[in-house]
Amino acid sequence: VAADDEENASVGFASDLGRTIAFSDGVFAIAITLLVLSIDVPDGFARKELGEFVRDEWPQFFAYFLSFAVIGRFWVSHHAQFAMLRVIDPRLVVINLVYLAFVCLIPYPTNLLGGFNESSVSVALYALVVGVASLLALVMIRYTRRHDLLVPVAAARAAASERALIVPPIVFLGSIPFAFVIPSQTPFIWLLLAVDGRFRRS
Amino acid sequence: VAADDEENASVGFASDLGRTIAFSDGVFAIAITLLVLSIDVPDGFARKELGEFVRDEWPQFFAYFLSFAVIGRFWVSHHAQFAMLRVIDPRLVVINLVYLAFVCLIPYPTNLLGGFNESSVSVALYALVVGVASLLALVMIRYTRRHDLLVPVAAARAAASERALIVPPIVFLGSIPFAFVIPSQTPFIWLLLAVDGRFRRS
Amino acid sequence: VAADDEENASVGFASDLGRTIAFSDGVFAIAITLLVLSIDVPDGFARKELGEFVRDEWPQFFAYFLSFAVIGRFWVSHHAQFAMLRVIDPRLVVINLVYLAFVCLIPYPTNLLGGFNESSVSVALYALVVGVASLLALVMIRYTRRHDLLVPVAAARAAASERALIVPPIVFLGSIPFAFVIPSQTPFIWLLLAVDGRFRRS
Amino acid sequence: VAADDEENASVGFASDLGRTIAFSDGVFAIAITLLVLSIDVPDGFARKELGEFVRDEWPQFFAYFLSFAVIGRFWVSHHAQFAMLRVIDPRLVVINLVYLAFVCLIPYPTNLLGGFNESSVSVALYALVVGVASLLALVMIRYTRRHDLLVPVAAARAAASERALIVPPIVFLGSIPFAFVIPSQTPFIWLLLAVDGRFRRS
Repeated sequence: VAADDEENASVGFASDLGRTIAFSDGVFAIAITLLVLSIDVPDGFARKELGEFVRDEWPQFFAYFLSFAVIGRFWVSHHAQFAMLRVIDPRLVVINLVYLAFVCLIPYPTNLLGGFNESSVSVALYALVVGVASLLALVMIRYTRRHDLLVPVAAARAAASERALIVPPIVFLGSIPFAFVIPSQTPFIWLLLAVDGRFRRS
Repeated sequence: VAADDEENASVGFASDLGRTIAFSDGVFAIAITLLVLSIDVPDGFARKELGEFVRDEWPQFFAYFLSFAVIGRFWVSHHAQFAMLRVIDPRLVVINLVYLAFVCLIPYPTNLLGGFNESSVSVALYALVVGVASLLALVMIRYTRRHDLLVPVAAARAAASERALIVPPIVFLGSIPFAFVIPSQTPFIWLLLAVDGRFRRS
Repeated sequence: VAADDEENASVGFASDLGRTIAFSDGVFAIAITLLVLSIDVPDGFARKELGEFVRDEWPQFFAYFLSFAVIGRFWVSHHAQFAMLRVIDPRLVVINLVYLAFVCLIPYPTNLLGGFNESSVSVALYALVVGVASLLALVMIRYTRRHDLLVPVAAARAAASERALIVPPIVFLGSIPFAFVIPSQTPFIWLLLAVDGRFRRS
Repeated sequence: VAADDEENASVGFASDLGRTIAFSDGVFAIAITLLVLSIDVPDGFARKELGEFVRDEWPQFFAYFLSFAVIGRFWVSHHAQFAMLRVIDPRLVVINLVYLAFVCLIPYPTNLLGGFNESSVSVALYALVVGVASLLALVMIRYTRRHDLLVPVAAARAAASERALIVPPIVFLGSIPFAFVIPSQTPFIWLLLAVDGRFRRS
């Protein structure tokens, strides 16, 4: 019976890794494409001059490109992590879904940040959602290392990834208090990540 | 002529299983990602404090995460079911489309539930849509078992899946009367599923 | 040089069929999932009773399920057509894109039909968009038959498909005049297709 | 250690090309399908006659089909470019993401163009976004040629592609000044591309 169970389980989980990767890729692709819906057509657009339009709308374009970079970076990182997997287990499927729930939520704080870039709540919520998503990315790499789900040759690389993935949650979650003091300047703290070479190379 | 027909049919249905899985995965990925659009930017957001924002918006975040969990669970379950298939027939393609029509509808009651969490109609509609979708998942596993579409080694596992999949439609459809008496409390009935170990392991 | 060109061309078009199918599947999956956005939350929802809600909203649910069936049917049919292809040429890529432009447009008349089911313009536009899409499906099967793009064993089946695919454009485009006389009843003309066995089996 | 690093790197990048193509295809498919959301239901629709509806709405349908053709053309071109790749490097992944950020933005100026087709800002923004995206397509083909990422037999074809891809950024970016003088006529300048045979064949 045990052997049978083993066999049955292997039937179901043979293609799990591939299907989870495909599903995650789909979710990333959709979340990144939905960002455009967060840019509103301004009231009274028909009478606006170019200068006025740019002055009113730049926070929305800034939020769009920022979130595109954030989700794009998450995708590249997820991609690298899952390429090192030998196999996936049901618990990792769940952690990955929770992680994706936060990635998919990003268009909402993007919308708030683009429309209300001087509001503490917008900035703090953005930092919280991206911070939790990056924390879950760290949790996933730890989990795969501890539960021996990686291909053997990837060990050194996974250790380096884990070290690099500690930085983003610290930056985003650590920026939350600043959102309540200097909301307009807080996004510049996040941009520090772009100059962190170790993170960039991960 | 019959042999010819047989051959022609096999041309068309060789890649059917793969394409149906890919299409279904795409639909799940899109439906789950569209959930974020159900969270509205509140009126007068610019003047809101954090406490006020959280107090006003928590039903929307609750509805978002609930539906993310529901669609995620449907995906994992669909995934396991279709991994056991040996072949697909045209009728299963149709049942699967009807099932997907209800899965894709979930963002609508999610929107109502997030915005009007004390309305009986919101809660009842949510329970109805999710209940019908889970009923159709049960119909699919029954159909594949009766029409010999499964790989032989999966027989025991499919029987266990079918038993486990009886629970969700009972919980959701059975909660509809409660929606008209205790609408705000009805979602807690649904959360019982999360503690049902047999269902969780399926 | 000619041999070189030949070779270069084959480099680019080796994976074209697969990528076109994947792209088309993605477009079908997204278009079908976007339909849910056409269902509006009614004004004054919070104060509505179930009966009132159903009475006001049923045309929206009808339009949703109708379009889900229409796009689902288009997908099954596209699926069967492309499974018979041996190779794809650049012109078929273009025809397929024009066809997809009409499939992707379906959520718009669905929205109009759900909100204004007694308007002649809604009904006529719906019939026009679906009619043109089904006409283009017919054009595609003709094109693949005439330009020898099919696998040889599929010849009889493709001929049968072409005959069956003549029916939907006639029904939809032919119903347009009725939209200006009996708009509310015109959708029932479309449902005739569901009872046409030859079409159903195609 | 160097050999180890080499090996580790190859683990992560073995499936990179395939996953990048799949991700890009997903983004194209979603962006093209979201275009339909840019067509608004007109105010007072219920009382409109067909003639009035067509007169009010044709700019929206024009913008929809124009952008469908633009994104479709980008997809065919991206498709041909990536089919010539032997391998992908991390920098190309980044350039491709920046390119996709502009492709995904297209629904926004489409919305403006459809709603305000006589506004200079709409027309200029449309030309800018499409122009930058086509410039980035040119940058990508240059990059792949200079960094030896192509399959050897594709050399002549890639050179021809690069020459053809110079035209669209010139047309779109060059049309921006016209947007401020003759906004309503500027889209006709873009249509010149459709008659440029060399570009069409690329």
